[in-house]
Amino acid sequence: MRIVIIGLGLIGGSLALALRAAPSADEIWAVDRDEATRRDALDAAVVDAAYAELADAPLADADLIFLCLHPEACAGALREMAPRLRAGTVVTDVCGIKRPIAACARAVLPSGVTFIGGHPMAGKERGGFANATPTLFHRAHYLLAPQDDTPPEATALLCDIAERIGCLDVLLTTPETHDAHIAYTSQMMHVLALAICEQRLFETSKGFEGGSFRGATRVAALDAGLWAELFWENRDQLAAMLGELEGKLGEYRDLLTNGDQTALRQRLEDTAARKEAWNHAECAGSGRAGDL
Amino acid sequence: MRIVIIGLGLIGGSLALALRAAPSADEIWAVDRDEATRRDALDAAVVDAAYAELADAPLADADLIFLCLHPEACAGALREMAPRLRAGTVVTDVCGIKRPIAACARAVLPSGVTFIGGHPMAGKERGGFANATPTLFHRAHYLLAPQDDTPPEATALLCDIAERIGCLDVLLTTPETHDAHIAYTSQMMHVLALAICEQRLFETSKGFEGGSFRGATRVAALDAGLWAELFWENRDQLAAMLGELEGKLGEYRDLLTNGDQTALRQRLEDTAARKEAWNHAECAGSGRAGDL
Repeated sequence: MRIVIIGLGLIGGSLALALRAAPSADEIWAVDRDEATRRDALDAAVVDAAYAELADAPLADADLIFLCLHPEACAGALREMAPRLRAGTVVTDVCGIKRPIAACARAVLPSGVTFIGGHPMAGKERGGFANATPTLFHRAHYLLAPQDDTPPEATALLCDIAERIGCLDVLLTTPETHDAHIAYTSQMMHVLALAICEQRLFETSKGFEGGSFRGATRVAALDAGLWAELFWENRDQLAAMLGELEGKLGEYRDLLTNGDQTALRQRLEDTAARKEAWNHAECAGSGRAGDL
Repeated sequence: MRIVIIGLGLIGGSLALALRAAPSADEIWAVDRDEATRRDALDAAVVDAAYAELADAPLADADLIFLCLHPEACAGALREMAPRLRAGTVVTDVCGIKRPIAACARAVLPSGVTFIGGHPMAGKERGGFANATPTLFHRAHYLLAPQDDTPPEATALLCDIAERIGCLDVLLTTPETHDAHIAYTSQMMHVLALAICEQRLFETSKGFEGGSFRGATRVAALDAGLWAELFWENRDQLAAMLGELEGKLGEYRDLLTNGDQTALRQRLEDTAARKEAWNHAECAGSGRAGDL
């Protein structure tokens, strides 16, 4: 199989490293504008060929193409690639938002080329090939958004890739369900981390932090360009989630100001039990390809 | 030295295990109402003696007493112990709130008995001796709130204990500064985790979560009785922190609804840089005993 990875950043680089770590006869080609990244990847034999520009890469020979670019760049690359793809090629992406890229793929890809949106739920605060690691995807969920007319073998191919790179499971979803849930589970967590780090006591808090503070604020040192795109493309869903959270926090503030300790304790008991049940629950997405 | 640990739960049990793990001539006595806990601790030679009731324990022979109880129980135990303590004994606690216990100690302890409020910043979602571990305090901050008249050798004794159990450093603070910062770094993180788990998408989110969601919600499966006490005793500070956070979240919601992507990106850049600087900053508490 010939796999082309477009963008050897944290995700694309980790994907190449993880695919190369397991023995296979696959050829891995990469496209990356950064010369040092191409040289490092070739020197380490992580990829078999590396091209500076999409126009240089033999895309018509590819079986599977991974778009590992930021959301806006993904749409541009799809448009540029479209005329040069052959029927039978599977194209996927790794973006944290799925509606815009799915709409773009529907609009520009020739018939016979299959697009399946993907989102491996893994990351780090620091991007780039230098921070890529073959274990980045270990135990992570891999979200896939096939269309009604997606050939089952194309979905199966990506499930196989997810298994090879060490993912925990594959969850099948739609672009709409993905974006609603990711606004909640991922984007809102990043806004929260930022908001906490903007509070008055942040600078004097060093030394007073424990695991809960580290856990909730770790992602605040984020890639601003990437996350501004993700937030903006999903702003309807994200704003709704933030509004709901503000309401819940206001309820707690009201309990503390006007309530009593018994009511507070009861609410804590109920929610702690809900979280405990969640910890032991099965995946509840719109569909599930199963554990790997 | 004779050390008495009152309450062999997660913190008291872990403290006994950590002290016992390093060779010393110290005697460790414990008080715990639970018979199975006393038997387990004695069978494992974690403690040299275990008593069911405070009244049974030879407190007058103690050099150092650790109150490892919930905040309200701490105050009750201090009152009960006070008449039986001798001058020279150091008493400390491990509660997540410092003003009420400091006020109680000032009111009830005889002169010559030294009280220093303490707070090792470590924990787990599951309490009890069965979940105690000798490594619980490894790399954690140990917060100490000595008074103006606290003998330096008493503070030094607790710094020595913090080092023996594997803490990262000791931060010297006051009950007031402690409670303000802990409302922010710890209690607010727990309210946040709860509030997130009360949102509409929580139940269907399983499978869509990554590291940021796990990190921000881990502590929601909390001990409701303990945390209702901690929140309630510090409700003034906690409510203020929540109000400030709601304001910040509202600003992000407004940026998403009425702003533009450039302004959003600028705010993300500024805050990400602020967090990056914080990650590399020294402790900035009101005083610092130093790295251990």
